[in-house]
Amino acid sequence: MNTSIIAVGTELLFGQTVNTNAAYLSENLNHLGFNVMYHFVVGDNDGRLEHTLKRALTDTDLVIVTGGLGPTQDDMTKETVARVMDAPLYLNEECLAEIKRYFSIRNREMAPNNVQQAYIPENAVTFRNEAGTAPAFAVNKGDKWVICYPGPPRELKWIFEDSGKDFLRKFKEKQIYYRVIRTIGIGESDLETLLMPLIDNQTDPTIATYAKEGECTIRVASQRDTMEEAQAAVENMISRMNNLIGSYIYSYDDEELKAVVVHKLQRQGLTISSAESCTGGAFAASITDVPGASKVLSRGYITYDEEAKISMLGVDPTVINQYTVVSPEVAIEMAKGARLEAGSDIAVSITGYAGPEADEGREAGNAYIGYAYDDTVGAVELFTKRNDRAWNRNYFRLMMLKVVNEILDEIK
Amino acid sequence: MNTSIIAVGTELLFGQTVNTNAAYLSENLNHLGFNVMYHFVVGDNDGRLEHTLKRALTDTDLVIVTGGLGPTQDDMTKETVARVMDAPLYLNEECLAEIKRYFSIRNREMAPNNVQQAYIPENAVTFRNEAGTAPAFAVNKGDKWVICYPGPPRELKWIFEDSGKDFLRKFKEKQIYYRVIRTIGIGESDLETLLMPLIDNQTDPTIATYAKEGECTIRVASQRDTMEEAQAAVENMISRMNNLIGSYIYSYDDEELKAVVVHKLQRQGLTISSAESCTGGAFAASITDVPGASKVLSRGYITYDEEAKISMLGVDPTVINQYTVVSPEVAIEMAKGARLEAGSDIAVSITGYAGPEADEGREAGNAYIGYAYDDTVGAVELFTKRNDRAWNRNYFRLMMLKVVNEILDEIK
Repeated sequence: MNTSIIAVGTELLFGQTVNTNAAYLSENLNHLGFNVMYHFVVGDNDGRLEHTLKRALTDTDLVIVTGGLGPTQDDMTKETVARVMDAPLYLNEECLAEIKRYFSIRNREMAPNNVQQAYIPENAVTFRNEAGTAPAFAVNKGDKWVICYPGPPRELKWIFEDSGKDFLRKFKEKQIYYRVIRTIGIGESDLETLLMPLIDNQTDPTIATYAKEGECTIRVASQRDTMEEAQAAVENMISRMNNLIGSYIYSYDDEELKAVVVHKLQRQGLTISSAESCTGGAFAASITDVPGASKVLSRGYITYDEEAKISMLGVDPTVINQYTVVSPEVAIEMAKGARLEAGSDIAVSITGYAGPEADEGREAGNAYIGYAYDDTVGAVELFTKRNDRAWNRNYFRLMMLKVVNEILDEIK
Repeated sequence: MNTSIIAVGTELLFGQTVNTNAAYLSENLNHLGFNVMYHFVVGDNDGRLEHTLKRALTDTDLVIVTGGLGPTQDDMTKETVARVMDAPLYLNEECLAEIKRYFSIRNREMAPNNVQQAYIPENAVTFRNEAGTAPAFAVNKGDKWVICYPGPPRELKWIFEDSGKDFLRKFKEKQIYYRVIRTIGIGESDLETLLMPLIDNQTDPTIATYAKEGECTIRVASQRDTMEEAQAAVENMISRMNNLIGSYIYSYDDEELKAVVVHKLQRQGLTISSAESCTGGAFAASITDVPGASKVLSRGYITYDEEAKISMLGVDPTVINQYTVVSPEVAIEMAKGARLEAGSDIAVSITGYAGPEADEGREAGNAYIGYAYDDTVGAVELFTKRNDRAWNRNYFRLMMLKVVNEILDEIK
């Protein structure tokens, strides 16, 4: 079923709020086999909402509207929908009772304008909302449907989970299954070139690549009569992709690299420590972003200058003098030192130039990642050829995660 | 000038990506005096993009399109724009040279399909893009304008800051001057209440408050015949605001708190060190995000467990036993230890519960920031009342920066 989503709210057009509702609904609608064709955002403006709603109803069969259901003057979604769908508003006693209950449970007095919220279009199906006072509802005119949800993401999600999904399942024709694969270390064009034999003339499953900061993601989706068929088609395609690009894949379930690494460490019962120069703590901050990180990381060293590398990590000053501080040799010394000091199973380090400045004869974007585990030490050289501090620091951080991920695959 | 924004990308309709580009552009367009009336999202589909583009050009005079400028098969924004605007694509040699340069600087080979990216509509104005290979451009048909930007937010922002803003300023008759003031430590409604005497009945300059994660931003803008008049009106308003909310303001130039702190440290010739538990390096990563941080921070300690606090920072185990590890006393011990170990002028520390878990009888969102400088030590208590790990960690980090910022004002 072709679907569009209209978000109503001037704050979205001011850029004060990001339209996360559209993303939330789209993801869920796709899961349920709906084909989301358009998102629209309009302000709290009667005429433009009507204009947009009519167009959405021309182009698609199901229109989901979020926002503009509040009790204040500028909330006019219901009035507009009622007019366009030829379903006049009436006072729904059940809705009114629910709104009264909402306030009484919370020991709060109901403002007079909350009565407004109990008016809904004739013949509409209503959805329970225990997370707020705005009722959600679905109304049709022939084969065309409009479903209205409140704008606050918490209310929208509550209603959608509680009854919205089940309501939508009734419309469902085909079964959809998809998986999102994440890769690192290869650009989008190179990835597509490698996948070309699978992408060309392919109608189902579909393969879509998209680039994220320093990474690339691939979505493989199939739409079939049964979930089993769709799933089998996706799994079969993924195993074919594996032969072509397996070495770049770090997740088959859309998991972030930091989470992949922490979960592997947890499963393998291993600990890690870090010694960071140019990333200044960003690697350790990534690891500790993941809940449960305390089981795998207990210490991290931020050693920005040479003196810190020497005294906190025991780096040999003669190694610095011989090879310079941004060198594979120093990166290895840092990792060895961190592993020894922290008593961790694995240690990873970095020394480099994030930019904008670098020492004479050296360039921003050049860094060395060091690692130490068991009896193994080593270093990885990075040259981003960019003088963009933020980009470099993020890339360095991702590459440290990549190195650790590969070590974990190696020693498992 | 009435404006709409079209984001092109199937990943948006799948809900895999949130449309932050629309929010970024909307905020900036509003700052520049443009009236954003609609956002649209369409997939990588020729027909639907054309349909949407035509409608946007009917309803508004300026249409900004993001995405679909990549080198791959599903990128068809340029073709569609060229057709709708009657401006056939041609190979722009300058763009091609720039793309080649982009690859050669990075010692990477240009894929054959990158040549595609050098084709742009006839008579288009092009914008430099040093952040990627997709050229951005503006093309008109009479009074109607279409501007195309690449979809990756980093590229879009780079181009918009570099030349996009200046290009848009040419469309405005009146002169707009604005400043963005940043505050911390006060909520949006409280801020508005304090500013009410200035906001009420105010038409120019306008005062708009925006809540960001843990912070609040105020935009003061004036639109006058000359830039001098607009500037004088804004400056006058800001000095009046200063009397009401001066103590919450940390920047008058939309500078991030981390940059404010690093620049003050630099100016005051002071150094800092950090000892982080629940933020896991995020504070030090913030400081070192700012170019030139090496002059102010040489060491940071990530001490996630008790043992690390004791051995890396010399925290007295009896203090931990007496007050628990998440306590003002331990936070102070950590700061004292970091300052002593690192030999820095100032040290800041944190110990707390980011969530989702906390020790028995304690709650997620509770943390203590410790500080040490000169003969002064102290601690600040935080209770966010939220069990949201990412939100708490970001808030804790901001509060550490706030504490340091206040110390720097104190001792200057």
